[in-house]
Amino acid sequence: MQFRGSHILSVSQFDREAISRIFQVANEMAPYALRQQTSSVLSGAILSNMFFEPSTRTRVSFGSAFNLLGGHVRETTEVKASSLAKGESLYDTARVLSGYSDIIVMRHPNSGSVAEFAEASRVPVINAGDGSNEHPSQALLDLYTISRELAARGKTIDGMRIALIGDLKYGRAVHSLCKLLALFDNLHFKLVSPPELSAPDDIVGELAARGHAVQHYDEMSSGIHNVDILYVTRTQEERFPSQDEADRYRGLFRLNQNVYTEHCEPNTVIMHPLPRDSRSSAQELDADLNQNPNLAIFRQTDNGVLIRMALFALVLDVVDQVHRNARAVTWYTEKRDG
Amino acid sequence: MQFRGSHILSVSQFDREAISRIFQVANEMAPYALRQQTSSVLSGAILSNMFFEPSTRTRVSFGSAFNLLGGHVRETTEVKASSLAKGESLYDTARVLSGYSDIIVMRHPNSGSVAEFAEASRVPVINAGDGSNEHPSQALLDLYTISRELAARGKTIDGMRIALIGDLKYGRAVHSLCKLLALFDNLHFKLVSPPELSAPDDIVGELAARGHAVQHYDEMSSGIHNVDILYVTRTQEERFPSQDEADRYRGLFRLNQNVYTEHCEPNTVIMHPLPRDSRSSAQELDADLNQNPNLAIFRQTDNGVLIRMALFALVLDVVDQVHRNARAVTWYTEKRDG
Amino acid sequence: MQFRGSHILSVSQFDREAISRIFQVANEMAPYALRQQTSSVLSGAILSNMFFEPSTRTRVSFGSAFNLLGGHVRETTEVKASSLAKGESLYDTARVLSGYSDIIVMRHPNSGSVAEFAEASRVPVINAGDGSNEHPSQALLDLYTISRELAARGKTIDGMRIALIGDLKYGRAVHSLCKLLALFDNLHFKLVSPPELSAPDDIVGELAARGHAVQHYDEMSSGIHNVDILYVTRTQEERFPSQDEADRYRGLFRLNQNVYTEHCEPNTVIMHPLPRDSRSSAQELDADLNQNPNLAIFRQTDNGVLIRMALFALVLDVVDQVHRNARAVTWYTEKRDG
Repeated sequence: MQFRGSHILSVSQFDREAISRIFQVANEMAPYALRQQTSSVLSGAILSNMFFEPSTRTRVSFGSAFNLLGGHVRETTEVKASSLAKGESLYDTARVLSGYSDIIVMRHPNSGSVAEFAEASRVPVINAGDGSNEHPSQALLDLYTISRELAARGKTIDGMRIALIGDLKYGRAVHSLCKLLALFDNLHFKLVSPPELSAPDDIVGELAARGHAVQHYDEMSSGIHNVDILYVTRTQEERFPSQDEADRYRGLFRLNQNVYTEHCEPNTVIMHPLPRDSRSSAQELDADLNQNPNLAIFRQTDNGVLIRMALFALVLDVVDQVHRNARAVTWYTEKRDG
Repeated sequence: MQFRGSHILSVSQFDREAISRIFQVANEMAPYALRQQTSSVLSGAILSNMFFEPSTRTRVSFGSAFNLLGGHVRETTEVKASSLAKGESLYDTARVLSGYSDIIVMRHPNSGSVAEFAEASRVPVINAGDGSNEHPSQALLDLYTISRELAARGKTIDGMRIALIGDLKYGRAVHSLCKLLALFDNLHFKLVSPPELSAPDDIVGELAARGHAVQHYDEMSSGIHNVDILYVTRTQEERFPSQDEADRYRGLFRLNQNVYTEHCEPNTVIMHPLPRDSRSSAQELDADLNQNPNLAIFRQTDNGVLIRMALFALVLDVVDQVHRNARAVTWYTEKRDG
Repeated sequence: MQFRGSHILSVSQFDREAISRIFQVANEMAPYALRQQTSSVLSGAILSNMFFEPSTRTRVSFGSAFNLLGGHVRETTEVKASSLAKGESLYDTARVLSGYSDIIVMRHPNSGSVAEFAEASRVPVINAGDGSNEHPSQALLDLYTISRELAARGKTIDGMRIALIGDLKYGRAVHSLCKLLALFDNLHFKLVSPPELSAPDDIVGELAARGHAVQHYDEMSSGIHNVDILYVTRTQEERFPSQDEADRYRGLFRLNQNVYTEHCEPNTVIMHPLPRDSRSSAQELDADLNQNPNLAIFRQTDNGVLIRMALFALVLDVVDQVHRNARAVTWYTEKRDG
């Protein structure tokens, strides 16, 4: 695909070559995200970071990624603070706001709204989540994390085995990740969920059509052994048709260190799209896993900065200039893992 | 007038010479707003962008204008997030906050509050709207747009004909624009509104006293022919004394392509202070005009960035330094109209 | 103490040597805060300014201090905009967000929460107020102001006399200031409050144990003469056990110019942690004092910028680099007092 000047709206825009290019650029961004070097390549550029739905993690991650490339960030964080509330069309909002910045990141509660906005925008738009529809940078950072975790274990995405656990019916992150994984070869999927929350037929069908192995499990212990990656999501009780159903499955899709030790291969990677719910009623991923070096959930969010820097650099076409504008960081930074 | 270090509170501060100077500087800002060049003239300077009332468009426009000159923006967007809610006086707030920035842009729901704030501030304050009172940068960008649109048609503001349409009684934008237009010579005003929402006597009186022709119309078709500019505003039904009155006028002050073609001279400019209400109950400016090249509403908001850059550059007295700090933009930008 | 890479969570971290170092660096920051020079020492660095409780003054002060050193600021201002609302633990929030910035400033309504957050953070954290617990930069700016005001009068903190007035029971600012003042020698404290709102025993005990003189007053006139500093705080009526108690003391702890002239030594410094309540029901510090040159309340907030710049420069270990990156300010700035 052509990145220069493009909108980033959906994972369906990417083929393997595009993914490979994004990951290669993300790798090049590491010295900046790790605060070894600083670049002023986008000094003078403006990101309009528009969140018409609450989000701390994604909003700050995009904003920081743009700052790391030297750019300014203008932010909008409230629906009620917006002209949308006064009956303005997305077309008008897009035409106006695209005159105020070089690129726009947008989250909106309505499915399809970001694409509609992008059509009228005069600058590139990156979808940071439009309702239940898409959140492509999340899927890319998940896939990038899988790729790096596997590489550290001498493996590749092709041929790997992954268990997807929890609410596979409504989880936007799982669906988008599956669409990207479908592009690879000979994967083995273990879909672990209550039957009421199993993955939609179109997702399962696409995986099968691409020749991947797909198995279904309605309890965790058999679903989580013999895999390379565990991708755990939250199962919200209100998603079940009745409280009786919810009660029946309560606690059956929670991972903790004991369950991990008993059922998983050594060095099985643990992932989660975050936030994980740490209230006692939830705990799909117990805090006793925090010291487990295979818990990759914070490497996922760290990788999110690399992916978002890469998307900015590719869309604004400055990849080759990033290093030319680099200088060493001279303030205190903790030594971090690359 | 003296711009250096001045507050910008009201359109009544400007004479024709001041307006001419602002527009000249706004013209010089075009290469930066169009992302051909970037300037770091205000690198290290801080704008405090204080919006005690919701606004996306004006807030982001001011913030981006300051970023385009290289400066930092600190933003406050909520009344309840403010010490004002704890009984602090505007005097105290102004004295404190003016120690945190080089210039302040302020919107506040109460008429006169920005002027009161400015009196105690130790740095220049720009009024971004104080209730029904003033919003000088809006009036300037409207006038600047009129000037440029007319120039492209071989005309000048002096001698031009303008129709003001809709709610002329409560519309702050219309009132301020009239005060600026009054400074010019031999204008022809067509005031088109329901009688219940006609322009206040003091505005009409001032136009007449300055020797301008003023005609009143209570329906649109005769009001909109033989003019150079249509300035359309929203007519909110709740402004009428009764629903009966509102019903009587519903739809009579809506402009669409058919009405335009039937009644307007070719190339009549269409303006609107925005946001326009695109709900079916409103539509004072129909979406079928979006492809009409004379629809200047998005050029208005684009021009807003130029006007706000000009105000910053003039008040902070850096006009002559802007170009000395310029360098070429090296990231992707769409080709835009100058 | 070691500043490099440290969290700043409590005034109990500081000894006299540390305080002296902070004040020395704060002095060096004056040319930047006064807009005579600008420094780009933290150009490329990112502050995450997280306010899970409303605050304009403290939030903007920290943000501007970071901008004055050349850095970017990413801001979060709402609890409901945060993953904390979705059941995420402070541990997870800290681990994630500390991957997005070089340093974090955090305000949170719960006592102890900032320290808990800091434990999981991979970057330094500065406490900007955690409920009734601590707000160390406020105590430092108060002490710094005392030090500078006394120096201008040929005096030092050692040996000085201070009256603390108002709600001494619940006032976080007073408690923290007392802990810092306790480190000095031979101070004379006059604690002026309604008996129901007198200072906690542990605070008074610590002052006495360090050899300071402490006297209690339940009315103002005798409490405010023969002191160098008046530190006035707000007495909220709802703090009293009954409305009868509140009525009994209403107006007895309000300072105005007449009271000042009648009871205070010439040049007694007037301080207040702000915001002061200017509603007629409050007015603990009357507006008629605004022209009194001894009113130091706005010098306090100005000094806050210096203190916060100093904390950033010390924790990020760039003190020696600030001046190397300096250049003259070339835009309009009002002449201010150093």
